[in-house]
Order: sequence, then structure tokens, then C-alpha cells
Amino acid sequence: MTETRHKVWSSYVSEEDQARYERIGFGGSTGLGDRPALVVIDVQKRTVLPEYEASCAPYAHEALPTIARLLDAFRSRSLPTVIAYVAPKTEQDSSRFAAKMPKLQAVDQTGYEFPDEVAPTAEDILLPKRHPSVFFGTAMMSYLVDRKVDSLVIAGATTSGCVRATAIDAFSYSLKVVVPHDAVFDRVETSHYVNLFDIAHKYGDVLDTDETISLLKEGQE
Amino acid sequence: MTETRHKVWSSYVSEEDQARYERIGFGGSTGLGDRPALVVIDVQKRTVLPEYEASCAPYAHEALPTIARLLDAFRSRSLPTVIAYVAPKTEQDSSRFAAKMPKLQAVDQTGYEFPDEVAPTAEDILLPKRHPSVFFGTAMMSYLVDRKVDSLVIAGATTSGCVRATAIDAFSYSLKVVVPHDAVFDRVETSHYVNLFDIAHKYGDVLDTDETISLLKEGQE
Amino acid sequence: MTETRHKVWSSYVSEEDQARYERIGFGGSTGLGDRPALVVIDVQKRTVLPEYEASCAPYAHEALPTIARLLDAFRSRSLPTVIAYVAPKTEQDSSRFAAKMPKLQAVDQTGYEFPDEVAPTAEDILLPKRHPSVFFGTAMMSYLVDRKVDSLVIAGATTSGCVRATAIDAFSYSLKVVVPHDAVFDRVETSHYVNLFDIAHKYGDVLDTDETISLLKEGQE
Amino acid sequence: MTETRHKVWSSYVSEEDQARYERIGFGGSTGLGDRPALVVIDVQKRTVLPEYEASCAPYAHEALPTIARLLDAFRSRSLPTVIAYVAPKTEQDSSRFAAKMPKLQAVDQTGYEFPDEVAPTAEDILLPKRHPSVFFGTAMMSYLVDRKVDSLVIAGATTSGCVRATAIDAFSYSLKVVVPHDAVFDRVETSHYVNLFDIAHKYGDVLDTDETISLLKEGQE
Repeated sequence: MTETRHKVWSSYVSEEDQARYERIGFGGSTGLGDRPALVVIDVQKRTVLPEYEASCAPYAHEALPTIARLLDAFRSRSLPTVIAYVAPKTEQDSSRFAAKMPKLQAVDQTGYEFPDEVAPTAEDILLPKRHPSVFFGTAMMSYLVDRKVDSLVIAGATTSGCVRATAIDAFSYSLKVVVPHDAVFDRVETSHYVNLFDIAHKYGDVLDTDETISLLKEGQE
Repeated sequence: MTETRHKVWSSYVSEEDQARYERIGFGGSTGLGDRPALVVIDVQKRTVLPEYEASCAPYAHEALPTIARLLDAFRSRSLPTVIAYVAPKTEQDSSRFAAKMPKLQAVDQTGYEFPDEVAPTAEDILLPKRHPSVFFGTAMMSYLVDRKVDSLVIAGATTSGCVRATAIDAFSYSLKVVVPHDAVFDRVETSHYVNLFDIAHKYGDVLDTDETISLLKEGQE
Repeated sequence: MTETRHKVWSSYVSEEDQARYERIGFGGSTGLGDRPALVVIDVQKRTVLPEYEASCAPYAHEALPTIARLLDAFRSRSLPTVIAYVAPKTEQDSSRFAAKMPKLQAVDQTGYEFPDEVAPTAEDILLPKRHPSVFFGTAMMSYLVDRKVDSLVIAGATTSGCVRATAIDAFSYSLKVVVPHDAVFDRVETSHYVNLFDIAHKYGDVLDTDETISLLKEGQE
Repeated sequence: MTETRHKVWSSYVSEEDQARYERIGFGGSTGLGDRPALVVIDVQKRTVLPEYEASCAPYAHEALPTIARLLDAFRSRSLPTVIAYVAPKTEQDSSRFAAKMPKLQAVDQTGYEFPDEVAPTAEDILLPKRHPSVFFGTAMMSYLVDRKVDSLVIAGATTSGCVRATAIDAFSYSLKVVVPHDAVFDRVETSHYVNLFDIAHKYGDVLDTDETISLLKEGQE
């Protein structure tokens, strides 16, 4: 089994492009480590509910129960869980963000709340963030080192934004990376699938949630 | 003028996806700052020459003179230029890299040399790197702060690898980002264009090299 | 004038040690940049009030009006001001901290409040932190780059803890560093003075608050 | 046993200051982890030999065989060893460094060589650096995560410079920190001892080399 067998991206990437990576052997499997953590990124009302114009509706909807299953699987095994979320913007946070994605600057307070499926528990690490990667400008690595984490399962939104950025940084820090393709979502389909294609061939294993949880079963119980 | 007017990605992204970003106003222009630096990433024989199996041939070929023009434009204005390159791998560097992209682990020494078009001069900052982003695990920010840089023009390879990763980090550090689409290249076409689409709507302005240089003319002379 | 002319540390450092640095020319002045920011670190009731056992009383008391003057000087010139503060600890934050400094883990909520002298205004950047340096695991650099800052004036507590750690990181990022010795304080005198000695000879200029403000007058009005 | 029982700093720190930390319970022991790495910092001819004006002679001399013993102890147990060293300065590296410590900018090439006692082997990770902390602008964390390291023993120079900066960052990343006081050295005595005092009460355990190696014996064989 390799992480590329699903090829969920196959109707979005030309056969020639897929063949080229196969020919040069990109996309080897890294597997899951002995001590994985789960990070759920930016699953807030603002990314999920259709009344928020810049949300990922309707794609977010079907990922929510899947993400809830992942959280349950990690919590029940006492494996670390991180709930990363966009901190409400203040006037001091404009920066490049407001110029590039103005709708995201104008979200109301309710938009920053969590939907029921990812309601944090006392064991979760709550990680406010201001940039795409959950590692950038946060204490993420300190939390992971303290818990002897060697691999990261990434869920949430968006595949082409914070998930992708987090996968790159986790890979750079030598963590093994797994992205369950049915637990991440985006605003646009092309970017969702092509970023999964990129991640699978460069940074981590793209599996489905059942496979990911089955790796936990083997490794952590 | 917006940075998305070229829409070089238009045959790789569905109209529906493009329309969605337009509707929610993603992709605003950030422009170039008062003091831009140029970073040329991983333009080495290993990424350029067809005899290297994992190179970006033939796409690299046409970008080379364009990159040379950018280097010349920045050098002649005494603007900072960074030549970032993959440091030759040692046995200590295996990490996640070898598992994911084994061909890249096995490149010979000649592969790490620069092609003539990006031969470094005494004024360039030479930046060895081991990870996708030129900011990760390097002194990049220290060099940029020392030179009062407020924006970054990114050239080189690959669009879906180190260019994308560098654009995310530069954006996160509040630098303005410009990616000239004809000065970056990749192994695979889909990823090249979809990553330009992602960058243009989230992290920076995607222009062509002529436009980029004309912004220098206005701003720095 | 050099930043070492005060030699406030002179009764805490042997003459031989002072002479050695002088002989090898350590302690050159870096000056203040064109666009300094002020960071006030951890000036909270927990570090200031004698009822907190691990506070810096009585040393904090005399620094408070001095720090207020610095804040006023920067705000009135519309120069960036950062109020960095220890975020209340949660159960997830134990880490190495609790083992090393258990008293700091047990501070009540009031302890995290600001004394009147550093009450934040809408223009200040509020920066929660979990580690000694204000740069570690925070968005500090993103805020500074966004405001084109080239130098940092550091006030607050403790000289041998967060002030020292912040001076090292600011220096490493190529920012010019000024530490006004009468605007920083500590729990213990020896460490206060020897850390000023270290900073003055390695990382930045140690001035008094009047001199620091007079540099602003010359440079920014 | 606590890491402060040696109190090697006792003639450099007032009794009142020592008593204050004792009263508030600073200086708890963190111990060594299950998987420590050793980092030897800046032990190069420039820091060791008396012909280099800014070297740490004569203090370096007695630390050299001790550091060699630590290296041997880690290598013989196949525990990770990092040799961090100052990369030769180029014209592009001036920055704040040249202003503050000009003598360090002018060291010849031989000065960057290693003395025999720390001659690297094929198993050591060689880590060039440009700033005080071995973590700043380097791939240090990626190497440590890849080797599942949970604690760091720090040797080399200078106690008040790179050793101190590295201890702060290691502590911030949630690594357990041990500094063997007879395996670190400095240019000036006061700073050497007061920085050990600071480290012992805030960031890690200050032991001697025999104790440190005995912890390895218990833990890793």
C-alpha cells in the first residue's frame, strides 16, 4: 500500500504529470510514527457555515463527522490533540492579510466559534494562530516536543491554505505527516485535489480516515 | 491592474472555482514594497539539466534567461539578491526527505553547481538550505532585516515546492510577495499552474517578469 | 559616547573582566535605527506587586514610572509599541516550566493584569507569550516587519530572563538593540547587573531612559 | 540531589540573591530525558588558542579534555552528537555583529578549524551557525526531532554567549537541558559563573561532567 493508491486527484491532474512523478519515484510512503498527534485546523463557524461568504460550504459539511471521528480516535487513546484556530483579528493584525483576502478580515465574533463536532475538551491543546501554518508564530513545536510527538495527522481547512502550509512545516521539522483526504476541505475543488497531489508526492501520506485510524489501532493500543 | 489579470492558470482551474474566488474578493493586489529583494531558489544543474532524472527539464530551460534578467535588474539597482540552493546531502540529512523523494537524495556533486545564468557574484547572498522554504532553518530573515527589505520577488524552482513554501513564509512574515510566473518552473504542469493560482489568491501578486522589473524602475531608481 | 560608559555593573564585575572586554574591543555601539519599536515585557501585577512571592519587588517599583515615560515617548511619536505579557498558564502548558519555576505556574488571574503604568491603549500591539523571548512562538517578527521596524528598545522584566532572551533574538534578527538600564528590573541584583554587562558587550547598547528618549527626539520627529 | 548543589557560582552571587531564589523555589531539577543529544558549541581554534586575541584562553584549555570525554560518552552509546561551529564570515554577514564585536569579524581561516579534541567523526551532525543560539537560523530542531531527542547536554563556548542562548531556546522548545559546568567556558569569569547561576535557576540543570555521564549510564545502556 502506498499513500498514492487512492489517487483522489486523478481527474484533476493530467496523466502525463502523474506518470512523471511515478517515473522519478516521488511519493514514497513515510508512514505514521510511534507517537502521532492530531491537529484540527481552523474548523470554525466562519469556515463551515454557508452564511459566511468566505466559508468552505458545502464541502465542509461532509468532513465534519469525519473530523469528529478522528478527534475521538486520538482522545480515546490519550494521544495529543491540537485544536488550532484563527484568532479574532484586531486592527493591529491587518498586514498583508487584509489586502489579499479582505473578506477574512471582516468576520464577526460568532464566526470564530467552534461547531459542535470540534468542541474542545480539557485535554485538547488550544492553539490560536494568525498565519497559514500552525507552526508559524506559535508554540506548536514546544507542545509537540513536550509530548514526544514524532508524527502529525492534519485535518481541517483549507487544504490549499493552512493544511498545505502546516504539512510543509511538519515535514521540514522531520515529523511524519498524514493527511486524511476526507477530513480536509477547501473553498475550491481544483486546489483541494491538486494540493493533495502535491502533498502526497512531497510531504506526507494521503490516506482516508479509516486507514489513518487503523494505523493508530495497530500502533498505539 | 490586478495580479490576477494574466490568469495563466485558466485552463487548469475550473471556471466555477475561479468565479468563487472572484465573488468573495480573494486575490487583491499587495504590490511591491519600497525595498524589494530577489530570491532565486534551487536553480542548480540538478533542477535544470535533462540528464538529471528528477530535474524540471524542459520547463527550466525557458525560465533561465528570464531569471538572469531579474538578477541583472536587481544587481544593477543595488537591490539585495539571494541565491538559495540545496546544500549537498550528507548521511545525516536523510530524514523524511529520502523516504518521500529518493531521487533527490542521490544527486551527484555536479548537480549542485549553478548554471551560468545564475552564477553568483560577490554581492549575492548565498543561502544553503535543507528544506522547502528558504526561511526554514536559515538566516534569511536576518539578512532581509539587515537590508531593510519589505518585499520579496521569488524566482526559481519548483513552483509547487520551494517557491510555494517560500511565498507562504514571506507572506507570514508580512513581506509583500511577487512571483513572476515566467521566472518559476516545475516538474509538472498542473502543479505549476494551480500553485500560481493559489499564490495569486492568497499570498502574493503573480505578474510577468517585465511587469516586475517595471515596478522596480518606478520604485527604486 | 558609548553604551558602556555608564558601567552600572562596575561593582558586580571584576576589573580584570571589564579590562579584558575593553582590550579586545567588545561592546561597540550599534546605535538606534531609523524606525525603532518599544517592547515592554511581562510588566504585570505578578512581577510587580510584593504580594506575589516570585515578583521583582521592590526593584520593579522604581522602574514603573520610567517605563511609563518610554511608552509615552513612543506613542506620542506614533512609533510602534508592543506590550508583551505572560499568558495565563493552562494545564497544557506545564512543560519544563513547572519543574524549574513552580511558583510561576501557580499565579492567580489578577497576577496577569497590567499595573496602571502600562495599561494598554488601542495602538499597542498586545503579544501573549509562553517563553522567555518575545520572539519565540509569537508573531513578533511579522508585526515588526509590517511596521518596517529596524531596532528595538527593550523594557520590563526580568533583565536576566525575558529581557536577555529578547535581546539575543533581536540581535540575531539583525535588529539594533537598546536596553535602558533604568527601565528593566529583576528579582536578583547580581543577575540584573551582570546581564546588563553581557548585553552591553554582545547584543546591544545599554543606555539610560533619558538618553534613549533623546535618540528618539533626534531621529524621529 | 539538585542541580544547584554545586553552587560553583557562590563567590560571584550575593548570599541574599541566592537565598531569594531558594525562598521562591526557583531552580528545581528537570533531569535528563530518555534520549539526550550532546551539542558542542564553537570549540574552534579561534575560541581556544591564545594567539587569537578574542579567544577564551586560558579557560578553554582545561575544558577541552572534558568535552572530549562527553563526546566519547555519547558516541559510544550511539546517542546523537552535534558539532556546532561559527561559519566563516563573508562580507554579507556583517550585520549587528561587526559593530558589537569587531574582533570576531576578522578571524583568519585557521581560526575556524577544530582542535583535535573535538575533531568531527562521520556520525556527528555538523551545524554551521551565524548567531548565538544553535537553534537560530539552523536546522537544529529538524535534526533533533528526526532522532527523537528529548533533552540536550550543552558543552563549549561561551557560557555567557552561545551556551546561554542555546539553553534558553532548548528550554523554550520543551527539551530538558543539562549544562556540565566544567565543559563550558568563557572569556570572562564573572559572566561564566553568573550565567551558570541563571541557567541553573531558570533553564536547566547545572551538573559536572561525571554526573552527566553517569546519568547516561543509567538511562541509555
